[in-house]
Amino acid sequence: MNISELDTPCVIIDQDIVDRNIKATADFFATTHLKLRPHIKTHKLPAYAKLQLEHGAVGITCQKISEAEIFANAGISDILISYNILGEFKLNRLAKLTTKCKLKTVADSRYVVDGLSKCFTKLNATIDILVECDTGMGRCGVQSPQAAVELGKYIASKTGVNFAGIMIYPASNQWQSVEDFCRQTKALCLAQIGHCETISIGGTPFMRGAKIVTSATEHRPGTYIYNDRSLISKSQCVIADCALTVLAQIVSRPTENRGIIDAGSKSLTSDLLGLENYGLIKQYPQAKIIALSEEHGHIDFSDCETKPSIGEKINIIPNHVCPVTNLYDQVFIYRDQKTIKTLPIKARGMVF
Amino acid sequence: MNISELDTPCVIIDQDIVDRNIKATADFFATTHLKLRPHIKTHKLPAYAKLQLEHGAVGITCQKISEAEIFANAGISDILISYNILGEFKLNRLAKLTTKCKLKTVADSRYVVDGLSKCFTKLNATIDILVECDTGMGRCGVQSPQAAVELGKYIASKTGVNFAGIMIYPASNQWQSVEDFCRQTKALCLAQIGHCETISIGGTPFMRGAKIVTSATEHRPGTYIYNDRSLISKSQCVIADCALTVLAQIVSRPTENRGIIDAGSKSLTSDLLGLENYGLIKQYPQAKIIALSEEHGHIDFSDCETKPSIGEKINIIPNHVCPVTNLYDQVFIYRDQKTIKTLPIKARGMVF
Repeated sequence: MNISELDTPCVIIDQDIVDRNIKATADFFATTHLKLRPHIKTHKLPAYAKLQLEHGAVGITCQKISEAEIFANAGISDILISYNILGEFKLNRLAKLTTKCKLKTVADSRYVVDGLSKCFTKLNATIDILVECDTGMGRCGVQSPQAAVELGKYIASKTGVNFAGIMIYPASNQWQSVEDFCRQTKALCLAQIGHCETISIGGTPFMRGAKIVTSATEHRPGTYIYNDRSLISKSQCVIADCALTVLAQIVSRPTENRGIIDAGSKSLTSDLLGLENYGLIKQYPQAKIIALSEEHGHIDFSDCETKPSIGEKINIIPNHVCPVTNLYDQVFIYRDQKTIKTLPIKARGMVF
Repeated sequence: MNISELDTPCVIIDQDIVDRNIKATADFFATTHLKLRPHIKTHKLPAYAKLQLEHGAVGITCQKISEAEIFANAGISDILISYNILGEFKLNRLAKLTTKCKLKTVADSRYVVDGLSKCFTKLNATIDILVECDTGMGRCGVQSPQAAVELGKYIASKTGVNFAGIMIYPASNQWQSVEDFCRQTKALCLAQIGHCETISIGGTPFMRGAKIVTSATEHRPGTYIYNDRSLISKSQCVIADCALTVLAQIVSRPTENRGIIDAGSKSLTSDLLGLENYGLIKQYPQAKIIALSEEHGHIDFSDCETKPSIGEKINIIPNHVCPVTNLYDQVFIYRDQKTIKTLPIKARGMVF
């Protein structure tokens, strides 16, 4: 089927661009000291994780146990869950998962370490833990190299858990300060614990700059497989590098310059990521998606020389591609404008 | 099970509040000339649509054919699809649906009317159409009473379609201008077409003011069943009227004032609806959810006298409750803090 015949709104993916993006990123990291451990939150598709592994990725990153379960069941054997796991329900699932694949997780507090230690000690097993560190993102993570080594020593002192290194989700492009943090933390860990195997950093924006983080051992980019409008705005890619678009249709042209499409916040998300407007229309790059209702996108076509008619289909590059794949049950994959397969988004909606 | 034992993040609904909200709104509209036709986009649950019908609603409103299919299959017999339906795929489904329930739809252009007319003429059937009008919302809809009657006359001239009145989604609380628009349009329709049975208006915010729209025949509120932070901010309800909360857990306390929860944009949506921050924490109303990553909510507890510990669970009233129910596969219903049932959100993810 030609993709223009698909009913709207839907998510469509250009396989040629996916192939190029996977290869280019794999080739780049192959020239560095950094191993590649892609984050699957962008695509949520085991088939694409396997493609990434075929191109040299050493494993994958998940944010949720429920995601990791899906990918482990699909045969992925090396997974990092880059999220504090707490509570009996999740810990029991984590324990079960360690029997299916090589698994690492993270902690940024004694509370999280204690939960993991208690759970795995009871099972007479051990889980690898990376200490999550905050280098300016302002999210989770201990706040200094000293705090990192202190938590590392605490892990090393407990049963059921093994200190395996550190993990950082760096704020964009501050690679030199990330390197300073990592080098200092590694030195402290080597001196006080005796080892610090893994230093995991991540993020697609400005990822090529990560090669200056010489003390890091691996990188965890996610978005690079599809790219999106936020990466275009940061000059990290161009329109032709964007593999995923939302196919939508003009359902109303109430005034000369206003167009309404059948893709709103339920199809594109309200994520702005610091941008103005809600996506880039490939056929009308001058148009502005100025507002989203749940089922309507409100478009201002004032700046467009030609303007669309009702019934016309358009392709939208979302501001932020990752949460978009969380909204759909399936994606349509195509080459040369022809759909080649439909894949269920297996890890959609995995909240636990 | 006590709701505090549920794993996080999840959506929980206080059935007592739902009962109160349904009854209060039904009682209010019973005192007016307006029939009540709730929009199901808020809850997406056939069980709650039935509860609304038991309390005097005359039918329901859906935004998508796929939603209407689910509710018709659940036995709902009177449905308005308040959305332009176009394209063969959707028209064929619409036609099939008219054999299962009493159905009305809308149009704001000849293009949409032509598609409906062609489809239903071929079937030797007729579908009721309301002309969608724009009274300042700036979304779909014809722009004037004159344009409404012109399209109404066009519908009346075609086979397979029946002009059944007008529909408006009014911008908040401009009820007098809505009444002026409706009265003028109705007069034109009566003079030029001979009838104008249904005048459908809608929206929860300021809905009690809608009683001054004396020419309208029905109202289509959605959010009132749960309420949310946007309605609190408009002084339309208080915290105790909010039936749905997202149960989340503190997973990290990296600094004295920063807390991170396991509910981000995948659990709360990025919808701001003109507000600052991303929801109201019932236990910490002074706290600010200042940012959302996909799986992390970033909270500033500076203004709170007591601050939570890791592992503590909190209840968040979302800014906008409707798209939140689109993110979860199930909701947990409770009374007196005990879960009484788990319902699949049957119409979640209905994009077509």
